Amino acid sequence: METELLRYFRQRVPGHRLLQVGLGDDAAVLRLGGEQYVLTVDLVSDHVDFELSQVDPRRVGRKLLAVNLSDIAAMAARPLAAVVALLLPRSGGMELAKALYEGLLPLAEKYDLAIAGGDTNSWDGPLAASVTILGETTDRGPLTRSGARAGDQILVTGEFGGSILGKHLDFEPRVQEALLLHRNYQLHAGIDCSDGLALDLSRLAEESGCGAVLDLAAVPVAEDAYRLAQQLADGSTALDHALADGEDFELILAVPPDQAQRILADQPLQASVRRIGQFIETPGLWEQTSDGQLRPLAAVGWQHRLDG
Amino acid sequence: METELLRYFRQRVPGHRLLQVGLGDDAAVLRLGGEQYVLTVDLVSDHVDFELSQVDPRRVGRKLLAVNLSDIAAMAARPLAAVVALLLPRSGGMELAKALYEGLLPLAEKYDLAIAGGDTNSWDGPLAASVTILGETTDRGPLTRSGARAGDQILVTGEFGGSILGKHLDFEPRVQEALLLHRNYQLHAGIDCSDGLALDLSRLAEESGCGAVLDLAAVPVAEDAYRLAQQLADGSTALDHALADGEDFELILAVPPDQAQRILADQPLQASVRRIGQFIETPGLWEQTSDGQLRPLAAVGWQHRLDG
Repeated sequence: METELLRYFRQRVPGHRLLQVGLGDDAAVLRLGGEQYVLTVDLVSDHVDFELSQVDPRRVGRKLLAVNLSDIAAMAARPLAAVVALLLPRSGGMELAKALYEGLLPLAEKYDLAIAGGDTNSWDGPLAASVTILGETTDRGPLTRSGARAGDQILVTGEFGGSILGKHLDFEPRVQEALLLHRNYQLHAGIDCSDGLALDLSRLAEESGCGAVLDLAAVPVAEDAYRLAQQLADGSTALDHALADGEDFELILAVPPDQAQRILADQPLQASVRRIGQFIETPGLWEQTSDGQLRPLAAVGWQHRLDG
Repeated sequence: METELLRYFRQRVPGHRLLQVGLGDDAAVLRLGGEQYVLTVDLVSDHVDFELSQVDPRRVGRKLLAVNLSDIAAMAARPLAAVVALLLPRSGGMELAKALYEGLLPLAEKYDLAIAGGDTNSWDGPLAASVTILGETTDRGPLTRSGARAGDQILVTGEFGGSILGKHLDFEPRVQEALLLHRNYQLHAGIDCSDGLALDLSRLAEESGCGAVLDLAAVPVAEDAYRLAQQLADGSTALDHALADGEDFELILAVPPDQAQRILADQPLQASVRRIGQFIETPGLWEQTSDGQLRPLAAVGWQHRLDG
């Protein structure tokens, strides 16, 4: 979301007694009947989040759900139920709707998610679709963006960059990984990498009122980031792609040093967990140079451009 | 939703232990932590649900929320929290987003609804937006579409037809009315009139496994239905508009005879409550002719057209 718009929302949208975490995190946290629930919506559209003409619509349907599950993962919550709203192009809309569901239903089943309902509409435009997921927090409560403290280590799952070559459609949301880490270790904050490692890390740091120093040499760069850099040959390096591409849907975590050490030693996930830097008191995003100095690092990533 | 698509969803989308009411009602009903919640999503778009070039965007923002609140009303539930997903045209998108919120926030406040979060995107297309509302049922449980029985009276709030002249944007969702009726009287089933009185009534009857007989002379026809019939001068009568236009967002209720009598006598709402017919065992939608015969009535209304 545009910074200006987020600022407007924060000024204008009131708090509410049910809201424990409102706008600005991966999901809202609601207290209802003594329990904590998380609620999150994502809207995707043709030509922005995928090119329907170039991809099996079942993969698009899967992605619809997976991006939301990734937000639930970022809160270290358990998904419960989803509602799906489709805005279908009139021509071929029926077949498209079915294909989207054929893609999302297996993922829903895998995560024991109830498909509770939906709304299906048509128009003379491209496909747009929103999925809303309701989840529940564990006994440990939600993992938010605002809990990082100076000294915390930056840990990430998996690898970054070049997701446009396929991972952005076929990634596995880190739901189980987040639940396992949240249960067995003390985590301070988390976010999923949807818009770019640098941008999402800077958001987490900002929400926590601290800064972040990246050890660029330690960033796990995906094979596809190298392939993409080679294909594009526009001067961007694989590391540039890892920092800026987004849609990696990996976890970025703030973890106290002793806990980080344990996680790194245990490697408790099927995916790798790596340390890529640490949080500091000075706000902003930084890189550590070889001589130990801090140099500002651009919070690059995907932002929806809005004029006027 | 298209009948064929609904049939597909019902065959293909599995039930779930959390789901008490799934696809095909105004909202899903979930049992969580011993409580019952309702969850519903609506997606609207420019040129389909409104013409943004011809209307104050604040009225559109209000409608975004109001159509969802109407679904919550149809379940006789209390709204709790909403998430809002916007797909904005790039040009002027920022101002549009703010205007939409300026329209929806007062309505949220009126119904004590938490705006819990959202997703804001832009593209080179017209505005599309989805709102998802989470609500809770009262001690009486949810009011569904499936509880009508032969002999139940058909009661409706307010008046029907011609909503395109203004009511479709400025209507008051019948949240308080539904809660009051559900608390003080025994209701068997309910639906809100979004797609047309005839169509929505026939849906309620079908979900309940019975039929419905309309007393056409008793249908409350709005002033705007007369105005619209006059303006269009296409041979459609004001009653035709009342039956088919939709977006009246009034309640259509199935009520046992003794309770219906009490409601009609008490007139407990600011809006009028009127009897317009009754449910019968024979499936289908019917009108009662002056000689007491039943004649089939077309279940006219708005349906999203989908090809292929």
